[in-house]
Order: sequence, then C-alpha cells, then structure tokens
Amino acid sequence: MLKCDMAIDPKTGSPDLTRLPHVVIVGGGFGGLEVARGLAHKAVRVTIVDRHNFHTFLPLLYQVATAMLEPAEVAYPIRTVFGKAENVRFRHGLVSHVDHERHAVVLSDGEEIVYDHLVVATGATAAFFGIPGASQHAIPLYSLADARRLRNRLLSALEHADAVADTAPIGLNFVIVGGGPTGVETSGALSELIKTVIKRDGLKLDRTRVRVILVDQAPRLLTPFPESASAYTLRELERMGVEVEFGRSVVEVEEHAIRFADGERLRVAAVVWAAGVTAHGTLASDVQESTGPGGRVRVSPFLQIAERTDAWAVGDSAAIPSGENAFYPQLAPVAMQSGRHVAAQILRQINGKPLVPFRYKNKGIMATIGRHAAVATLPKGPTIKGTAGWLAWLGLHLWYLVGFRNKLRVMINWTWRYFDWPSGPRLIVADAETAD
Amino acid sequence: MLKCDMAIDPKTGSPDLTRLPHVVIVGGGFGGLEVARGLAHKAVRVTIVDRHNFHTFLPLLYQVATAMLEPAEVAYPIRTVFGKAENVRFRHGLVSHVDHERHAVVLSDGEEIVYDHLVVATGATAAFFGIPGASQHAIPLYSLADARRLRNRLLSALEHADAVADTAPIGLNFVIVGGGPTGVETSGALSELIKTVIKRDGLKLDRTRVRVILVDQAPRLLTPFPESASAYTLRELERMGVEVEFGRSVVEVEEHAIRFADGERLRVAAVVWAAGVTAHGTLASDVQESTGPGGRVRVSPFLQIAERTDAWAVGDSAAIPSGENAFYPQLAPVAMQSGRHVAAQILRQINGKPLVPFRYKNKGIMATIGRHAAVATLPKGPTIKGTAGWLAWLGLHLWYLVGFRNKLRVMINWTWRYFDWPSGPRLIVADAETAD
Repeated sequence: MLKCDMAIDPKTGSPDLTRLPHVVIVGGGFGGLEVARGLAHKAVRVTIVDRHNFHTFLPLLYQVATAMLEPAEVAYPIRTVFGKAENVRFRHGLVSHVDHERHAVVLSDGEEIVYDHLVVATGATAAFFGIPGASQHAIPLYSLADARRLRNRLLSALEHADAVADTAPIGLNFVIVGGGPTGVETSGALSELIKTVIKRDGLKLDRTRVRVILVDQAPRLLTPFPESASAYTLRELERMGVEVEFGRSVVEVEEHAIRFADGERLRVAAVVWAAGVTAHGTLASDVQESTGPGGRVRVSPFLQIAERTDAWAVGDSAAIPSGENAFYPQLAPVAMQSGRHVAAQILRQINGKPLVPFRYKNKGIMATIGRHAAVATLPKGPTIKGTAGWLAWLGLHLWYLVGFRNKLRVMINWTWRYFDWPSGPRLIVADAETAD
Repeated sequence: MLKCDMAIDPKTGSPDLTRLPHVVIVGGGFGGLEVARGLAHKAVRVTIVDRHNFHTFLPLLYQVATAMLEPAEVAYPIRTVFGKAENVRFRHGLVSHVDHERHAVVLSDGEEIVYDHLVVATGATAAFFGIPGASQHAIPLYSLADARRLRNRLLSALEHADAVADTAPIGLNFVIVGGGPTGVETSGALSELIKTVIKRDGLKLDRTRVRVILVDQAPRLLTPFPESASAYTLRELERMGVEVEFGRSVVEVEEHAIRFADGERLRVAAVVWAAGVTAHGTLASDVQESTGPGGRVRVSPFLQIAERTDAWAVGDSAAIPSGENAFYPQLAPVAMQSGRHVAAQILRQINGKPLVPFRYKNKGIMATIGRHAAVATLPKGPTIKGTAGWLAWLGLHLWYLVGFRNKLRVMINWTWRYFDWPSGPRLIVADAETAD
C-alpha cells in the first residue's frame, strides 16, 4: 500500500514510521475514530489525541444516566481499538491550542505534536443559549461525566423521597427540556426507572407525585421525523406516565427550580438539558477566525478547513455544506461518514490525486421510547414503529458499538432487561467516589 | 414464624411492621448483610443504614484497581438483595452518632432512627500505624473509591511513561506494602496488567524499567499459611516479574517517593497500602468507652456489646473473643458467621430463649497469585496449589458474590481473561468524572 519508497526502512523492509506523513487527529469520537480507521495500515503515521483514554458511545449515555447500563458498557479504550495497527498511536492529553506556523498541536502539559495533516474532530457539547442558570443547574448528556452526574442526582432524589416517606412525604418533579431523540429517550427511560425502583427495590414513592415532565418549545416531538412518528411517540410516552408539554420556553434554571416564559415556577429534583448542541471547545476559533453556525469550523465540500490544505474537520465540530447556505445535521452517521471521507482525501492528496467532495448518504433516523417501542424512519421509505422499530434500533446500536466485547456486554444487559430481570445495578456512583 | 400475635394486624391478617421490635444494622458489609438475611421474613422490623447504597465485595477490589473488573461487578445494591423481604428496609445515610439514652441512631441529616436492637457492623479500614505521609500518599484497598483511585493512578502513570517514551524515557516503580493476601494479589495482578498494556495496547514501555516491588517486614509472604504455601507464592510472584523484598520497614511515604528504615529512598509512581487494618469510624468509641484491640468493639461470647443487652457487634468492627485474651481474625468468613449468629441471638432473646456463645468454624483460607495460580489451605488439611487452587479460589469467590447477575458478569469476565481475550476495559475512570 506504500506509494513512497523512502518510507521503507532498507534494513528491515518494514516502513520507517517516523518518515511517513504524520496525521494528528484531535478527538476520539465517532468522527475521529473513523479517520483513524481509514488510515490504519496505510502509508501514514497517525496520532489520536484525546483527554479521555476511551471513546464514549454517546447515543447510549441516557441508559447510563438511568442506571440501565454501566459506564464501562458505553466506553471503549481507544488503544484497544487500534491495538493491531502499528501506524496508529494514542496520546492521552488535553489540547491547549494549535500553532499553525509551526504546524503543531500544543498540549496542556507543554508537549508539541508536529503534524503534516491536522484533523479537528472535537465534537459538540450542550448549548444553553445563554439561559440563566442552565449551564450550572441543568444536566446535559454529552459525556460520561454528565451521565454519572445525572444518575447520582436521580437515584439520590428517589432515595431521599423514600427516607422521608413516613415522616414528611414529598413529591418529585423531573423536567426534561427538549423533545428530540435525547429528550424522548431519557424521559422514557426515567419513567421506567421510577417504575422499577418502586416495584423491585420497594421504595415508598407515590407514583402520582413523582412526575416526569418533557417540555419543548415546538408543537410536536421528534421534529425531523414524519408527523405520524411524532404522534405515536407522544402516545407511547403518555402511556408510560410521561407528561409532555408543548410550546413551553425555559427562562431560568435554579438549583431546585425551573422557570418558564409563562411565569410558572416549578420545584424540581433535576433538570435534564436536551435542548441543543454547539461545537465543542475553543479549537474551532483557533483554526479559523470566524467560525460557522453553532460555533462549527467552516469546511470546503472536500472537508478542508477554509484556505488550508493541511487541516480538516469532521463530524459535529464541522459545518459541512450540504448546499447553498445549508449544512448537514450534527448526527453520528454524518460524523462517521465524514471521518471516512477525510481519511480517503488525505490519502488522495498525499498521492497527488484530485479531491472528491463529501456527500452524506442518509440511511434514516431512529429513536427509542422504551422497551418494545421505538420509531425508525428510512429516507423516502416507511416509518417503522413499535417492537419492530425497537428491534431495528437495538440491532443498529449494537452494530455500531465499538468492540465485540462491549457488544456482548450490552446485549446481555439488554436481553436481561427485556425479559424482566432486575434491571441493572442502581448504584449511586458518587458514593463510590467518596473516600472510604 | 411470628411468636407474638399482637404483631398481626387484625384487619389484613398480615403483620403490622410498626409494632414489631426494630433492629437497626449500621453497615451493609458481609457482617451486616448476614444479620439482615437471618432476620428477613421473621417477626422483627429491620433497617440497614449505610452511606453507600451498595454492598462492596472487598476481596475483589484489587481486580477493580488493576482494571480487570468494573466497579459495578463488585458492588451490589443493598435494596436489591432484600427486594422480596417486606420487613427489611434500607436507609441511605451516614451515621453521626448513637444516642443510647434515647435508643436512637442519629444520622448526619439530623434524622433519628429509634431501635430496639442495634447492630454495629461498620467494618474495618486501612491502618497506617502513624507512618508519616502514608494516609495521604499511599493508596489502600478498602473501598470502591480506593480501587478507582488506584486504577487511575496506575493507568495514568503507564500512559505518561508511554507519552514521553520517544523524548525522555522514564522508569516506573510501583511499591506494594504488605505481603498478606491483598498485597500478594495486587502485586500479581499489577504485573499482569503491565504485561497486557505492553502486549495488547502497544504502550512503549521497557518492562525492565517498570518495576513491581512487594515489601514486607516479615521474612515470608502470607504468614497465616503454611511455609510451603509461602515458598510457592514467592516463586510464582518472581516468575511473574514481581520483586519481593523481606525485612523492609517503611518510615515515610511522600507524594512521589517512599523511604525505608535502612535509609533507601525510592521514587515511586504509586504506593499500595496493604499493611494492616483497624476498625472503621468513630461508632466503636461511641458505643463503648474503652475499645478493644485495633479499635474494635469488645463483645461478649454472645456478641453483645459489653454491659448491654440491646446492642451487638459483628465482623471486623468487633473484637470477638476466641479464648483467653485472644480474638478471631478480621476475615470475611468470621464476619459472615458472626452476622448469622447475631441474627439468631436477637430472635432467641426476643423469644425468651437463652443465648448461645459464638464459635467460628474455620473452613480454610486462600489467596490468588495470578491466572492459574493460587493457594488454598484447609484447616488441618492439605494445601492446594496451582491451577487447582486457582479454580477453588474462583469457585468460592463466585459462590459468595451477592446476586446471580453479578456472579454471571464476573464469571464472563474471568472466562474471557482466562482464554486470553483483551482483558477488561482499561478506562481511566477519573476521566469520566471530569466535566465534559
């Protein structure tokens, strides 16, 4: 596969890695991993930099938050993914900034990694739209830390309500802001969690006073889906005991309360923030003076960062043009496809071939509502609902889970849950962090 | 099973729990759980108080520390254990003190739990013997938090050594203090971890410069075992690359160094403290003016706390007399047997029967050195070594793991490890706690 013979060490016959072009990928999410996969075993040297030594499978974070999966089931060590690819290395560290003149990524520990090609794959994080208190008191679901924090909050609130049930019973309100896939999935799973802790763990809770409230500004759920899928999702959530309120805007989040534009102030045990995303970190503004929509890095149709030939951006951190002033949505499949595309373009450029523009192949979208219930919409195709949708959702997520071992672990847990075994160890993980 | 008819609610025919004697168990470890198990479905009301909502399977903490098992695999929610026993409740909270006059356990949130019988089952924690710096810089293995902290330290040190391997290679010393079962098991597992990260994760480490050093004051390992078991263990550890040094006393632990009585000062990446235990917390001095050896609560042969008929102590927190000025060792089997014994005695006392003194039935001791290697010694019986010992160790630990689900999870992981699959997700868990 080597095009350039000076990369072959004449003594050993194997490629001298240090003489190959060096591709530095910042971020080990869906996008970054696909770039590295596309470059594994090729005539380049690859370094993935991430502040976590693991890849996080973001679509299942809500299951960690609701104690259905354990952190290790949605996290996979980046080193293990590339264990067999000699030309891919992992560097555990936080990127401080990019020094374009010196073609170097500078880490917070001072080390500089010199690149021939830079790939920005830093992903997205929650957008709070400047709503007072939201970033401090509402909990998003964009990292394993978020999921752990939310789980602790949920389980501790339920434990507390049980502890005072005999003396001074209290009600609990859990508010989920945002009716997209994350909001729908989290409210459904939270409703199942409450049912489970009452039924199995014997918590003394009055289900009518433990409310799960999903609010959205829009008039329907899952706006990217067809109307029929939205209506089905609403019915299913309500059947599970989730209260869905449309046309509601949040104006402030306090430590134990939420305020809406209509003046209502509601005491809450937790606010889950599933209202929107923005590009992550300051790296975008580092590589580009004026960033694109949502703080994303503007890229050409070839996914090169504007006016550069040695810097690329993929996934949620890139504003990838889909047409005139239009951009692809921030979805996992876009991240993965753009990652594969950049890997191919870097190889083409090194080998002197012309670049090919990126085209996203839409393979459909899906969201799960609970056990047995999900919606999946194929492009220009039918909308699958109910158990069939759920099985499709399950299959697809298992397929994309990194590593056979994780697939098996998650499948065992899901099978268990499906057949009604005690669902998951409901550990208050904060307890595990408290010194002895 | 009810002896006392006033406990039956005349309307429902089922026992009115609030009118039954109330047994409050402080601590959900091996001892506390066995007390509650012995009282489940009996004519008493039981409340287990623990600051964690889960039971921790302490004998396997070293595997969490070395990234072979995940935290959820050695932790089991206490509520789930007693889901079906209506008369057993769990209270998540930290005990502040015991108010004997009011017969109440007072929690840190101010709530008082009034008891008819109190069981102290607060267990033990690491003893640092006043050695300067030991409690701050050495890491014991007595809680899930300890295990997570040690894992982060070990994996981060290995990642760091890899990151600087090309520019300024460093050596790493890991020192384990104490040659009892915990020290032996941890040093063996750590040695396997290092082999694995080099072989599978491709970390650039020079194995000869990554040292695992087990030190002990005594002249041999595993002193409670026969000499032949100690000799076998030493051979196995050395074969695995562990350096064992006898007759060495630690005089100080610094942040990145350890000092010995002979004057040597060694730079270290981590110090594991497996040197001894002491009774946990202040509850012991709360219930008794002068505590027994190792800060333990003195109890009668019936396991009642001296001069009390309504307070009992079990397991590691109790100094249980085994003869004249002799006490049973702080071992899991003693904790479990004493827990069962106290449950029986409380029922006997309530029913006006005479109390029976506690007698420990020694069923042998065992320790594992690595895959395929362990020692098990039966009382007055043979010492089992090698793979047979390892299988015995494995079977026994699985047997005692609380809950079928956890047994299965751990068994799957062990089977995997045995047949040489990528062993365990080596996640730096601290990363997961860092906000996004």
